[in-house]
Amino acid sequence: MKKKMKGVVFHGIGDISLEELDVPKIQKPSDAIVRITLSTICGSDLHLIHGQTVVDPESPIGHECVGVIEEVGEDVSSFKAGDRVIVPTFVHCGNCFYCRKGSTSQCEKGGIIGFGSIRGGLGGAQTEYVRVPFADMSLVNIPKTLTDEDVLLVGDVIATAYFALENVPIKPGDTVAIVGPGPIGLCVQEIAPVFGAGKIIMIGTRAYRMAVAKERGALIINPNQENAAEKVRELTNGYGADVVVECAGNPESFKIAFDSVRKGGSVSLMGMWGKPVEVPLNEMVMNNITIFTGLVDCDRLHETVQLIEAGRINTSFLITHRMKLDDILEAYRIFEHKEDNVLKIAIKP
Amino acid sequence: MKKKMKGVVFHGIGDISLEELDVPKIQKPSDAIVRITLSTICGSDLHLIHGQTVVDPESPIGHECVGVIEEVGEDVSSFKAGDRVIVPTFVHCGNCFYCRKGSTSQCEKGGIIGFGSIRGGLGGAQTEYVRVPFADMSLVNIPKTLTDEDVLLVGDVIATAYFALENVPIKPGDTVAIVGPGPIGLCVQEIAPVFGAGKIIMIGTRAYRMAVAKERGALIINPNQENAAEKVRELTNGYGADVVVECAGNPESFKIAFDSVRKGGSVSLMGMWGKPVEVPLNEMVMNNITIFTGLVDCDRLHETVQLIEAGRINTSFLITHRMKLDDILEAYRIFEHKEDNVLKIAIKP
Amino acid sequence: MKKKMKGVVFHGIGDISLEELDVPKIQKPSDAIVRITLSTICGSDLHLIHGQTVVDPESPIGHECVGVIEEVGEDVSSFKAGDRVIVPTFVHCGNCFYCRKGSTSQCEKGGIIGFGSIRGGLGGAQTEYVRVPFADMSLVNIPKTLTDEDVLLVGDVIATAYFALENVPIKPGDTVAIVGPGPIGLCVQEIAPVFGAGKIIMIGTRAYRMAVAKERGALIINPNQENAAEKVRELTNGYGADVVVECAGNPESFKIAFDSVRKGGSVSLMGMWGKPVEVPLNEMVMNNITIFTGLVDCDRLHETVQLIEAGRINTSFLITHRMKLDDILEAYRIFEHKEDNVLKIAIKP
Amino acid sequence: MKKKMKGVVFHGIGDISLEELDVPKIQKPSDAIVRITLSTICGSDLHLIHGQTVVDPESPIGHECVGVIEEVGEDVSSFKAGDRVIVPTFVHCGNCFYCRKGSTSQCEKGGIIGFGSIRGGLGGAQTEYVRVPFADMSLVNIPKTLTDEDVLLVGDVIATAYFALENVPIKPGDTVAIVGPGPIGLCVQEIAPVFGAGKIIMIGTRAYRMAVAKERGALIINPNQENAAEKVRELTNGYGADVVVECAGNPESFKIAFDSVRKGGSVSLMGMWGKPVEVPLNEMVMNNITIFTGLVDCDRLHETVQLIEAGRINTSFLITHRMKLDDILEAYRIFEHKEDNVLKIAIKP
Repeated sequence: MKKKMKGVVFHGIGDISLEELDVPKIQKPSDAIVRITLSTICGSDLHLIHGQTVVDPESPIGHECVGVIEEVGEDVSSFKAGDRVIVPTFVHCGNCFYCRKGSTSQCEKGGIIGFGSIRGGLGGAQTEYVRVPFADMSLVNIPKTLTDEDVLLVGDVIATAYFALENVPIKPGDTVAIVGPGPIGLCVQEIAPVFGAGKIIMIGTRAYRMAVAKERGALIINPNQENAAEKVRELTNGYGADVVVECAGNPESFKIAFDSVRKGGSVSLMGMWGKPVEVPLNEMVMNNITIFTGLVDCDRLHETVQLIEAGRINTSFLITHRMKLDDILEAYRIFEHKEDNVLKIAIKP
Repeated sequence: MKKKMKGVVFHGIGDISLEELDVPKIQKPSDAIVRITLSTICGSDLHLIHGQTVVDPESPIGHECVGVIEEVGEDVSSFKAGDRVIVPTFVHCGNCFYCRKGSTSQCEKGGIIGFGSIRGGLGGAQTEYVRVPFADMSLVNIPKTLTDEDVLLVGDVIATAYFALENVPIKPGDTVAIVGPGPIGLCVQEIAPVFGAGKIIMIGTRAYRMAVAKERGALIINPNQENAAEKVRELTNGYGADVVVECAGNPESFKIAFDSVRKGGSVSLMGMWGKPVEVPLNEMVMNNITIFTGLVDCDRLHETVQLIEAGRINTSFLITHRMKLDDILEAYRIFEHKEDNVLKIAIKP
Repeated sequence: MKKKMKGVVFHGIGDISLEELDVPKIQKPSDAIVRITLSTICGSDLHLIHGQTVVDPESPIGHECVGVIEEVGEDVSSFKAGDRVIVPTFVHCGNCFYCRKGSTSQCEKGGIIGFGSIRGGLGGAQTEYVRVPFADMSLVNIPKTLTDEDVLLVGDVIATAYFALENVPIKPGDTVAIVGPGPIGLCVQEIAPVFGAGKIIMIGTRAYRMAVAKERGALIINPNQENAAEKVRELTNGYGADVVVECAGNPESFKIAFDSVRKGGSVSLMGMWGKPVEVPLNEMVMNNITIFTGLVDCDRLHETVQLIEAGRINTSFLITHRMKLDDILEAYRIFEHKEDNVLKIAIKP
Repeated sequence: MKKKMKGVVFHGIGDISLEELDVPKIQKPSDAIVRITLSTICGSDLHLIHGQTVVDPESPIGHECVGVIEEVGEDVSSFKAGDRVIVPTFVHCGNCFYCRKGSTSQCEKGGIIGFGSIRGGLGGAQTEYVRVPFADMSLVNIPKTLTDEDVLLVGDVIATAYFALENVPIKPGDTVAIVGPGPIGLCVQEIAPVFGAGKIIMIGTRAYRMAVAKERGALIINPNQENAAEKVRELTNGYGADVVVECAGNPESFKIAFDSVRKGGSVSLMGMWGKPVEVPLNEMVMNNITIFTGLVDCDRLHETVQLIEAGRINTSFLITHRMKLDDILEAYRIFEHKEDNVLKIAIKP
């Protein structure tokens, strides 16, 4: 194993570069070192770079990747060198207070890949190697029948879509509306039928993304062209959607989500909010609305892989671009400006 | 059956009186007429009188009562004249869109007892007789072993406490904190163990109500004397309560509730809010907080009665005063000003 | 409305004929009369004719149909003459002890369509008109976008498949094995993805039915050609299926089901059993196996219709034959002998 | 730490003795060595000694104990020497296939304390020290406010009672009947209210145990004196119990359980069965009965401790005798013959 590797480093707001870094080493008996074979850029990397998520300068970033086990600590029993694995964004121990309560994203011993000083300060994923604590608990084997691209998004955006739906009371046949046709919103669309969704409605404005949503079976609404909430009700016998998943994270999209949900329904907020938002609590009471949100629990990745293997979910269409780690700054530029109808860019080290 | 009866009528904000009213009649085959044997006054009657809940002038009010069946429509098959029954605040049909979805308080055909023009406009319960639509679906038999006082609160405040807990993810051993030691808060305290609650913490300031909470086993916190959220964490190994039920309905109590819940926990809002409240959505995301609320679904009354019959719940201690219907305006005065350590006043027609 | 109609009548074991019957009338305010537009024959009609299910002689039979409302009682508020509706096999009141407990097939006031003296003795469905008690609770509207054939199976075989899966703990990605590729087994295959199923395995011997299962995406196993339980384990990394749905109802198929389920898994028995079966309780304990079974609860038909409307379920492929009511005895012959690759026969009055 | 200790060893059917054994050592980084401060004898020790559970000769036995951490492996982060802990009967890894599926008793890497060659072959608990693999996942801290006796039963009989109820659909107010007033049955009685039980009915014959059940609030039925199933129905308005927990493990008690459950109810089998039992599957179908069973999952011990700490559960009354490890053969004699109104015997090393 070599000693040095290239990796993306965040220096301060708006400032990232590709640097030479030390290859990580096993620190604890339950660690594994994973050689990254494919990585990608996520919307939350942009939040971080823009300062909406505050991490220390000089942090290595990136958190969505797959790879091959290079080395395992002596207490790792489920994996060995050479195994192909998915790395989750949130690493969890499985036995702390929060893990036992089911909130694994709040794990007291684990950490987040690629978010510098936040919770544990693990290395990034836009690089060549990454150390993964609690390897037995956190890593997931990639079946032989699946390629790296098939499962590249399992560790973050698919996990988030799964999380958004798993925790709301969704019944077979329910209508699910999604606000925001970005990668997470499109993953929600793909995975909603697994939770029993009937009609799926995508609400958004960006034409090429809405075209993808439509092609893959969603009813679509452009809030610039029509009253989104009224249109949702029109599509649902006047009631509104049973569940609305908000994936945009601004007061306007919050209002659309809130106005589109039926009485007794749930709003699942997956966007990021810079500050408090005024919420009509009285309407929530009178209309029996539940608001669910949170940082993604990465403890259902095995289930997701089984669904992909069985052909129930397919998110490979989201990978629209393939680039090299050496060109990642250019990839960031394309991704940020949504150039060239980009959805996700697979980055090969 | 006589033709005229006395009943409390709302004339406009701050203005109620005891009037002579027509005794209600069967209107549909699924109706029942119930002769009221015991009624009471609720905090939401005060909201109504103060104009926070908007109903038409000249509406008969009151919504919490028990009685004896006087007459049933020809399609009523579960009840007959002479049966002792509990009348729920919200009457539901059981088969409309909302009932099928489980949101029976939003029933499209049912209505609310004692809320004038709101949803169906049924008569009040602070009177001698009340018409109950969908009698088979809505009424609940009172077992012989139980007195009227034993079950007087089943149709509203116990139902609300049950509803507050039934819909949040509460696990055996969880700590439940309650903000507001009024009748609903005290009912939440009584019923929480049925849902598996471990420690129960009551947060409030009114001395005699806090004394009741303490005597019945709650840990108590006075937010005027200590930082409530800090104290909750102190009582929970630093984590905060798994579930917080907010029963006060003001921005200060909302903040206490929000600050007292642990990461990954739930806030169940049972208070009434006059207007929107600023909610720290970003903290909700970062701390995985769920907000649950709504108008009470009155479809678990049978279960509640079984629990009272088996001795698991006992709320008769809440009935601190007993008065006659003729004296109900005086009863309102006592209840509103919380005089004489009042909790609930049983009103006998 | 005419006075007389034709309908299939069971006279005794092995003896049915098409007779002239009185057209049913409204008996209670919550009844509806439905003019049948399409009916079908079910495996349980054969059980009845063969005497495995005991009903009184001279009972009209058939229980799976759709139609148009001819007339409603005065207490029916959700339907009116002319509405297209699905008739459920089990009619339920919604408010008796069992309905409140969720076991609507055990309803104390309802009944079964086409099972003579069993529970309520309602008329049959292989005829021209049927009286449906508790119409508001039991009937389901057919959306304009769907044909009669699209929803013909909703009231029984789809309901049974839904019921088989709804009540077992199935998680996203779970492997579901099905024993018996008849109409119910094939419906389980269609609906399992709605409950999150990953791999679906069909176990059976009849070639044309197995071909259908395979074409629609199941992995298939012929227990005459290989050890079914071993093969299931081979397809599931050695573990066995998470859930096995048994749809054949004989000791051999029970053994296959029991041997194919993984430790900690569930066996859902949807077959009919003439007599007690020896069950290895000790193995059940050591392997943490749950056995679920029962008569179908027909209270999730609205959800099923939403799923069909949204395109998530499609069972119209099961209708392989279309015949007239006048020819129903011939249809019975074809269905019983599984001639001509029959799956289901749509019968037009 | 000393090198030798005394411990009970199983030599063959009917043959146990107190032997000198090697004190166990840390073998893996996730192990802990616990110095046992209190242990006890369980009914399943008797099954083992009588040969109903087959383990290799010369196995150390006993599986219910509490103690103090003596030493931890380098990968243990939640515990340190000196911590008071509960040792679970089943040790689990938390990340294998079965642990992820929720069947932790079937863990592929863990093992059972005191069951010799079965699953992993860990040492016994009727001794002075025990090695506990996966310490972070398996051990549970004892709060300062609780004594060893308060929590002695958490690791097995309370866990079993919890498991018996956790996995059946029990709703608030449900009637729970228990067949067999032994330690597990009495623990089910104690813990059932946490899962919402209304009435609790104990069915059994041994007078002193039935007296305990009655004193602690159960309705009691002696099947030698009356028809148990009929009496259960008499106590439940003619319906039968919603849930029956069978804790005796013989065909007669199975029949009582099966006959006492209501239509649509669940039978939870916690007894051990030597061989297959004839089960009336046809009645199960017609009456919608579910059968649940299995080896206890020991992954809810933290919840149980929280309930004991909050005063919701109290099982210390079960400890009727206190003896020394040196006298354990005499203790076995008393326990086996149910002499002196024994329930559980606390054994002090």
